[in-house]
Amino acid sequence: VRVRCEVVAIGTELLLGQVVDTNSSWIGERLAEAGIDSHHQTKVGDNHERIVAAIRLALDRSEAVIVCGGLGPTQDDITREAIAEIMEVDLVRDDEIVAKVEAMFARRGRPMAANNLRQADVPVGATTIDQIGTAPGLLCPVGDKVVYAVPGVPYEMQEMVAGTIIPDLRRRSGVPAVIKSRVLRTWGMAESTLAEVVAPRLDAMADGGAVTYAFLASGWEGIKLRLTAKARTVDEANGLIEAEDAEVRALLGSVVFGVDDDTMESACGVLLEQRGLSLAVAESMTGGMVASRIVDVPGSSDWFRGGVVAYDSEVKFDVLGVRRGPVVSADAAEEMAEGVRRLLKADVGLSVTGVAGPAEQEGQPVGTAFLGIALGESVESVQLQLGGNDRIRIRQFATISLMDQLRQRLLAG
Amino acid sequence: VRVRCEVVAIGTELLLGQVVDTNSSWIGERLAEAGIDSHHQTKVGDNHERIVAAIRLALDRSEAVIVCGGLGPTQDDITREAIAEIMEVDLVRDDEIVAKVEAMFARRGRPMAANNLRQADVPVGATTIDQIGTAPGLLCPVGDKVVYAVPGVPYEMQEMVAGTIIPDLRRRSGVPAVIKSRVLRTWGMAESTLAEVVAPRLDAMADGGAVTYAFLASGWEGIKLRLTAKARTVDEANGLIEAEDAEVRALLGSVVFGVDDDTMESACGVLLEQRGLSLAVAESMTGGMVASRIVDVPGSSDWFRGGVVAYDSEVKFDVLGVRRGPVVSADAAEEMAEGVRRLLKADVGLSVTGVAGPAEQEGQPVGTAFLGIALGESVESVQLQLGGNDRIRIRQFATISLMDQLRQRLLAG
Repeated sequence: VRVRCEVVAIGTELLLGQVVDTNSSWIGERLAEAGIDSHHQTKVGDNHERIVAAIRLALDRSEAVIVCGGLGPTQDDITREAIAEIMEVDLVRDDEIVAKVEAMFARRGRPMAANNLRQADVPVGATTIDQIGTAPGLLCPVGDKVVYAVPGVPYEMQEMVAGTIIPDLRRRSGVPAVIKSRVLRTWGMAESTLAEVVAPRLDAMADGGAVTYAFLASGWEGIKLRLTAKARTVDEANGLIEAEDAEVRALLGSVVFGVDDDTMESACGVLLEQRGLSLAVAESMTGGMVASRIVDVPGSSDWFRGGVVAYDSEVKFDVLGVRRGPVVSADAAEEMAEGVRRLLKADVGLSVTGVAGPAEQEGQPVGTAFLGIALGESVESVQLQLGGNDRIRIRQFATISLMDQLRQRLLAG
Repeated sequence: VRVRCEVVAIGTELLLGQVVDTNSSWIGERLAEAGIDSHHQTKVGDNHERIVAAIRLALDRSEAVIVCGGLGPTQDDITREAIAEIMEVDLVRDDEIVAKVEAMFARRGRPMAANNLRQADVPVGATTIDQIGTAPGLLCPVGDKVVYAVPGVPYEMQEMVAGTIIPDLRRRSGVPAVIKSRVLRTWGMAESTLAEVVAPRLDAMADGGAVTYAFLASGWEGIKLRLTAKARTVDEANGLIEAEDAEVRALLGSVVFGVDDDTMESACGVLLEQRGLSLAVAESMTGGMVASRIVDVPGSSDWFRGGVVAYDSEVKFDVLGVRRGPVVSADAAEEMAEGVRRLLKADVGLSVTGVAGPAEQEGQPVGTAFLGIALGESVESVQLQLGGNDRIRIRQFATISLMDQLRQRLLAG
């Protein structure tokens, strides 16, 4: 059965650009993974006639519609009424949901305004999707088609879409029961090169392989390579992903630094912990960005001691013991890495010094960066030339490049 | 004349969620500022029939449509053909644009693939909007309505929308010729309180004032208060904004830290420079985030010396000279601020220590933060309790709160 699914996002704030509609993009990604076509996504304001018209139009063109937003307690939240009109039914108050909403307020020790009970109104014939916040989702049959309604709060929406709606859509479409995906995180290879290197796999897949590929260029998060497998069982899908992962890594080697929620910093953290090493960083151009990314990693306190932001040259000389001279240089980078390792009593010292712009410095062009790595007996530096003239982007790429230098050395060592 | 304007964003990558459609939000914001209603925004993939249908539908409902994307050189880029079909005209190749495209490739010293000349195709009867990249925009009359086409590359799109399309829409709608807006940046007051404090101005405006208000809650960027004035001349519009700005500041005082592109850090930078003071920061829970935000300010090297990320307690004791004892404490915050000021030979020292989570620390709950400020003879600290359980959000709010403490003291001093 062909099942196409549109997304209708509700909210005047979306049209006014006060809030960017990331929900539709997220849903679009999940639909694509599940092999469900989505040809239109629409934003419409908090207006009854226009919401009804937008959902009707979507139902004309597609077999399923996910309506996102407008399920809250205020008078602006009119998605329930719009769907009831389309279903040509009344709303009835669901006692079970009333009890849940009241219990939630009681637990928080807060008085409940009466309009919160609007969230317990359900169109006759609809079933509810368990609430994560105060509003339940709705699954509303319209003839042999279906309208789903979910709250606009991202984590509530995501839970309902992933947990209930996608499985329901899959059942309706007869798409194989199980779809699994894995994102391989890469750094250090351009998208076109990456595509060339994995071309043998893409060819194999084009010949009827069970795993599909998607490349997602993600700025300083590198290029993400998503593998998606469809199968009849979870075991079969996981097996397909594992086998394909191994094939891809055989081609890409250490360009792959992690999967799914791994970051470059968490990958480094795992390697440092395995080796029992602690880390300190000295930053000039990045100004604390490297340290801040590291601290984002849960548990980084086990291996990260801290850092010195040596923005002013005098701080490099005074605090880190860098010899006076050019500070955008290999020597300065190496002395910064050694200096911060000594000062903070860490096993490994990293450093970055360079020119983020807008103007050149010490005769070095914007985008020049020297990365220093003090690891065991070795103190080395690497020079980079980062493109573009965007100050923040240059600092971001220097940050990830530095951590990747550490990772490659730990892997090799 | 009533002029409503819809936005149709073109691109399969938008539906698949590979790219978030921020263009429509940006355009929606500009339309709202200009007083042009936008009731629908639609995303559609790279499919001729569906693009034509989406634009036709938008033209049925509204007087103007901005089509964003699909103007590039590849076979996927079919917006030109879709619009020609709607206008019921042919495409003709524009020699002037051909020359510009060829010159652009020649300047970059790159060979030009023939399909780049597709970007010079223009529907008969359309006028072009000067190209910023290789593709020009299009202004296409359809009866007494209009379709505008702009590239999906954000900066090219923005230039054409702000420079050509919004003025054209204003002329069509008879909206007063000049619209100016200013964003007042605020920190330290909840949105509901802010609305209450400026209520006298909102009331005055409701009685026919010429300036409109919008509140934009923006996370750790604080709450933005946008004033928009419509007038017949630039001078008149600027005068209205200036007068209203003064009225609002009289009510809000130092809660307003800047306007438009100012940040909390740039505001602090101006105050430090005026007073000839240099700054150093010691960070524990924020892990370099404060320093990194400061380095984002162009010219911060004039007043920012650097910082120490003292993530491990031993670094606080060893490097910053904090006395051994609880490190999530007022004493530790004050000693960190003094220590970093001394170590980096700065005039002012700031510090932050606290519990970002996930677990409590030293018996202090998640969200506890102590901010230290060493300024002149005074060394003080402030305790905060930040809500929520989101590690990054807690660090972000601690960062801005710390800079705001500095700002308030510099203003008072």
